[in-house]
Amino acid sequence: MSKSYSITAIGAGNIASHLVPALKEIGCDIVEVYSRSIYKARSLASKVNAKPRSDLSKINKESDIYLIMIADDAIKEVVDKLPQFSDQQMIVHTSGATPSTVLKSTQIPYGVFYPLQSFKKGQEINLSQVPFLIFSEDEKLLRTIGVIARQLSQTVKVVTDQERLLYHLAAVFVNNFTNHIACIGDNILNNNKLDPQILKPIIETTFNKILTQDACAIQTGPAIRNDVALQKKHLKLIENETDWTSIYKIISKSIYNSNKEE
Amino acid sequence: MSKSYSITAIGAGNIASHLVPALKEIGCDIVEVYSRSIYKARSLASKVNAKPRSDLSKINKESDIYLIMIADDAIKEVVDKLPQFSDQQMIVHTSGATPSTVLKSTQIPYGVFYPLQSFKKGQEINLSQVPFLIFSEDEKLLRTIGVIARQLSQTVKVVTDQERLLYHLAAVFVNNFTNHIACIGDNILNNNKLDPQILKPIIETTFNKILTQDACAIQTGPAIRNDVALQKKHLKLIENETDWTSIYKIISKSIYNSNKEE
Repeated sequence: MSKSYSITAIGAGNIASHLVPALKEIGCDIVEVYSRSIYKARSLASKVNAKPRSDLSKINKESDIYLIMIADDAIKEVVDKLPQFSDQQMIVHTSGATPSTVLKSTQIPYGVFYPLQSFKKGQEINLSQVPFLIFSEDEKLLRTIGVIARQLSQTVKVVTDQERLLYHLAAVFVNNFTNHIACIGDNILNNNKLDPQILKPIIETTFNKILTQDACAIQTGPAIRNDVALQKKHLKLIENETDWTSIYKIISKSIYNSNKEE
Repeated sequence: MSKSYSITAIGAGNIASHLVPALKEIGCDIVEVYSRSIYKARSLASKVNAKPRSDLSKINKESDIYLIMIADDAIKEVVDKLPQFSDQQMIVHTSGATPSTVLKSTQIPYGVFYPLQSFKKGQEINLSQVPFLIFSEDEKLLRTIGVIARQLSQTVKVVTDQERLLYHLAAVFVNNFTNHIACIGDNILNNNKLDPQILKPIIETTFNKILTQDACAIQTGPAIRNDVALQKKHLKLIENETDWTSIYKIISKSIYNSNKEE
């Protein structure tokens, strides 16, 4: 980095646990780490030689960048409690779903610095492979977070609030929903005292195919063949699980419809 | 193999394209390959030095094993057209969903030899990693296909028709359904002229987590947090796609319900 930025990290959860050490590593000065929990703040701050904070009224007033890495529904509340800044300072959040304008009331340049990935503390993630979706209406801020993001990741894209929300929605499908579907697969077998490990090889090839081919083009199964007799047999096996039955029916219908239409 | 079995392969489609050459390789004698299409029969037969057939009345009457690898809804019809056999012969099919008893009318020992995997012609698959679910009420037949399966794969399990159908149902969830969900993710982005490649890293980590952890235990996202405001924003983006909207709602409900209950 040509310039070293001083950063106040607001949040010490899953995203922060990955981003904060990575920012330190590329030469940012992490001044302090805020969390409602002083224990969490201390734990992360100690890793990057920063001060821990749990009182927003006491946070540093002179950092270059305020980086908000907290749950969507808490952003507004935290922003309202921040001190007054000068217009040489900048503020960004890391949310996939919250508009950048939630930061407008700070009256300083604001933007978004969103890593499109599902982060969990303690799980290793190669940030260079994580796409960063960034945005600001302020040119200088956009340039600054662009320089930082490109040092962290190979993929950096400027996208509007609306575009980011669409990426976030698609990610909910491919991450949250596929995970739940896999959970149902496990439960079907566990509930019948069968071995879910048997599914691992087919899960692995499924994902290799999704990653290397066009998922829509490689669809297989009873739904695309409109094999109603087999679908009835399957549904009989889960007739007491109303959510699973609904999921089976609507995804099968959607598979059939989307291939019929082509 | 202690004994070399002569096999009539009935079917020259996706499963047969993988199984037949593998059986040849472990020392089975593939006598002939039947397909309704003589071109398909020829293509596969030529690879294993077998005779191609497209007329069921002309198939070999003295093979040790008749191996049926065709679509579920065609099995009954083909079985009805087979010649009379002696009770020293054996017949098995490779279906995940069809009861073994569909073969009963042949009046010879019958069973199931089901590789739990999604096969496509021309796609490389390491059979040793594919679980084989086998079954027969005939002890000698079960022993025979057990010996053969264990030469092809590291994982061989004897399961009843009902258990096999449950494995097949779970596989429909983790293969067919996850693939369709990934297709929807692609379409959400394509329809809005955004780049689906951006999703690849999160798909990859999602699947690595599913393969190495307990999918039910690692669920994340707006549904499990019951973040209704965000769900409404997402649904607004796909309000014209009724199937996707239904899928979003029912999977979110199922995620919420299954975590609430615990």
